[in-house]
Amino acid sequence: ELTRLLEPLHAADVADLLEQISGEQRRNLLAMWSGEIDGDILSEISDSIREEVIESLPPEVVAEAMRDLDTDDVVDILEDLEEPAQEAILSTLDQADRVAVEQALAYPEYSAGRLMQREVVTAPEHWTVGEMIDHMRSVDWLPDQFYHVILVDPRMKPVSYVTLGRMLSARRDVTLKSIVEDSFRIIEANEPEADVAYLFNQYHLISCPVVDRHGRLVGVITIDDAMNVLDEEHQEDMLRMAGVDDEATLADTVWEATKGRALWLFVNLLTAILASVVISAFAETIEQMVALAVLMPIVASMGGNAGTQSMTVAVRALATRDLTPRNAARVIRREVAVGAINGAVFGVLMALVAGVWFGVPMLAVVIGLAMVLTLIAAAFGGIAIPMALERAGVDPALASGPFVTTVTDVVGFFAFLGLASWILL
Amino acid sequence: ELTRLLEPLHAADVADLLEQISGEQRRNLLAMWSGEIDGDILSEISDSIREEVIESLPPEVVAEAMRDLDTDDVVDILEDLEEPAQEAILSTLDQADRVAVEQALAYPEYSAGRLMQREVVTAPEHWTVGEMIDHMRSVDWLPDQFYHVILVDPRMKPVSYVTLGRMLSARRDVTLKSIVEDSFRIIEANEPEADVAYLFNQYHLISCPVVDRHGRLVGVITIDDAMNVLDEEHQEDMLRMAGVDDEATLADTVWEATKGRALWLFVNLLTAILASVVISAFAETIEQMVALAVLMPIVASMGGNAGTQSMTVAVRALATRDLTPRNAARVIRREVAVGAINGAVFGVLMALVAGVWFGVPMLAVVIGLAMVLTLIAAAFGGIAIPMALERAGVDPALASGPFVTTVTDVVGFFAFLGLASWILL
Ligand SMILES: [Mg+2]
Ligand SMILES: [Mg+2]
Ligand SMILES: [Mg+2]
Ligand SMILES: [Mg+2]
Ligand SMILES: [Mg+2]
Ligand SMILES: [Mg+2]
Ligand SMILES: [Mg+2]
Ligand SMILES: [Mg+2]
Ligand SMILES: [Mg+2]
Ligand SMILES: [Mg+2]
Ligand SMILES: [Mg+2]
Ligand SMILES: [Mg+2]
Ligand SMILES: [Mg+2]
Repeated sequence: ELTRLLEPLHAADVADLLEQISGEQRRNLLAMWSGEIDGDILSEISDSIREEVIESLPPEVVAEAMRDLDTDDVVDILEDLEEPAQEAILSTLDQADRVAVEQALAYPEYSAGRLMQREVVTAPEHWTVGEMIDHMRSVDWLPDQFYHVILVDPRMKPVSYVTLGRMLSARRDVTLKSIVEDSFRIIEANEPEADVAYLFNQYHLISCPVVDRHGRLVGVITIDDAMNVLDEEHQEDMLRMAGVDDEATLADTVWEATKGRALWLFVNLLTAILASVVISAFAETIEQMVALAVLMPIVASMGGNAGTQSMTVAVRALATRDLTPRNAARVIRREVAVGAINGAVFGVLMALVAGVWFGVPMLAVVIGLAMVLTLIAAAFGGIAIPMALERAGVDPALASGPFVTTVTDVVGFFAFLGLASWILL
Repeated sequence: ELTRLLEPLHAADVADLLEQISGEQRRNLLAMWSGEIDGDILSEISDSIREEVIESLPPEVVAEAMRDLDTDDVVDILEDLEEPAQEAILSTLDQADRVAVEQALAYPEYSAGRLMQREVVTAPEHWTVGEMIDHMRSVDWLPDQFYHVILVDPRMKPVSYVTLGRMLSARRDVTLKSIVEDSFRIIEANEPEADVAYLFNQYHLISCPVVDRHGRLVGVITIDDAMNVLDEEHQEDMLRMAGVDDEATLADTVWEATKGRALWLFVNLLTAILASVVISAFAETIEQMVALAVLMPIVASMGGNAGTQSMTVAVRALATRDLTPRNAARVIRREVAVGAINGAVFGVLMALVAGVWFGVPMLAVVIGLAMVLTLIAAAFGGIAIPMALERAGVDPALASGPFVTTVTDVVGFFAFLGLASWILL
């Protein structure tokens, strides 16, 4: 009955269902249904629960499931398993697949070599469309998915490619060389997968040959996998900017989720204590005028928000490669100008509010000035800190937050309380 | 000389270059180089400066450039232009293209109908591979990009599709019907583009037929365009969560950028003032113990961070459809548990710091308890607010931030100062 319910679902939807139910429900479901799990489902399941699922299945079922998959999907599954589990599965693969998978696993994690599939359709440059079609009709191992025939030279270096559409519409006597695409590009197997996703998105690639250090063809990456990487990179940026462990998923346990958040909360605690130290330097000033304690969080909060705005724009623009050394100076100038204008606008507004609320004109002046200074510092920190981190080789999505918050908190409290003690008392 | 430099660049890179230079440099470059602008470059340029670029070009150049493009790219360019500019370009297109573009423009903005290209390769179900290949060799209007032949019934309803790879490897007498793919899906032209991106990513589609309300084929969407939408949707989520106008780009002027940030800063000012009102209710308490003013921003800051963590996890999970009514209760329970544990951990830590710093044991107890309460409220608000907004049909990325901040600020200050006035005085 379970089979009747799950059978019509796409593997991706079955995987989502397995992710959404609780750990206990999952174990029960798999115990009842394990025989029907196929490779596509294993391949769609999120990394965070895949190991658990694979361990709960009989080894024959796993081995059988892996046999239908293209090598890229086998690699994606194996790379996250422990050595013994990897070995057990590898030993059940055909010799050719096994070699291909082991070669892919020899490339670094998150590299093009891990994303590529070994199943590639190639042809010598001198072939005609007719020869190629006859060849394809005669072989029986064509990949599930391919969109180009890659033309290779005698040393297996890719030199160009032909789309299948172009081949289908050409006469049989046309040479492949005469109908190649000018969108042709090559990816080196050691390149990071984030760069692969960028290339596909930037140049509208559909598939792209992958070469080893010597320029020889070792595989091909298809756009569906590049799209998946793009989506993962986005998730990583979003979670990192919020200070959440970047591999967090909804299937994580309470304990995993708690650990995944605690590090950033700890860093934030340190920066918050630093801000408190600034405040404590002005304890006497606050004692003389408690309105300062009431108003000071407003300045820090506005600074924090303006800083986050600039920082997010910067992190995104660095990821899309729109922010480069070429336009850095112009963008920084623009951000600072935006900070100054918004600082002035909200400074005046807040001055009016504070003036009416507390009836102390000089307090209004102080909060207005503090707002301008803080929003300028927030804008500058928000753009300059991610750029400096990127330059230092640190992911700006990961580390910008704490630095920007420190700048806005410290500048905010110091400007407001410092001006107050200087002007008011 | 300019042509010699720019000629070898991909259209996407030329577009990036045009985006990165200043407005003045752009005008100069276009004045010197306008004859060489082709359709692909116009199509790659970001929406924010495209209108400016098109206006600065001679109308014949624009008309000529548009003629090479597939209809989806023409639509993408035209949809953002003013009526008269649209009309001027439409009138230069072939009759067939013009009709196709006008039909696409009749679908709502950000719908599948705007993304599809009109150029589709179809076949009746009863054709053989041989008949199809002969047909493709005989026509001269095949699209630049296509990956499937769509099988249609006599009323032009798509019933299935065949990949080109499968066709190329089959014998000429095989019927198309016998080699169709089971990944076949159909998109309705009125569906939002975000759903299209989700479908492509979830089901690894490469191209997908688009139908009108009556189920008749009107176009096809290809994965490169879906990948682009996925990227834009991410950008939108990131910018909205940070309170930045979601169409902001680095090419925006100071004035545009200032406006694009001011709205959220204004909302934030209101929530910050609300928090201040809470503080002012405890002005006497603070006057009696100024240490409270020193420590209170720590509680609010930790709450704000914990709330942002939960909120980001929720917004992302809603976007990927991993958070559904099915697992909502479990995820909320998990978040609250995480909040309670981290609240306890950082409450104890902060109690120790406060105890050592100020030497008042009860102050340590107060800040510890306030931390626990605030982090639980932050976790609950962080997950429940985005879910409630999604239910109400509001984009959680857009609106969650202010609500969550309000909750964490108000609860943070109220818990800390309230407990202080109750326990300490
Ligand atoms: Mg999934
Ligand atoms: Mg993996
Ligand atoms: Mg991977
Ligand atoms: Mg693949
Ligand atoms: Mg990564
Ligand atoms: Mg990244
Ligand atoms: Mg671009
Ligand atoms: Mg095109
Ligand atoms: Mg557009
Ligand atoms: Mg569009
Ligand atoms: Mg297109
Ligand atoms: Mg959108
Ligand atoms: Mg969205």
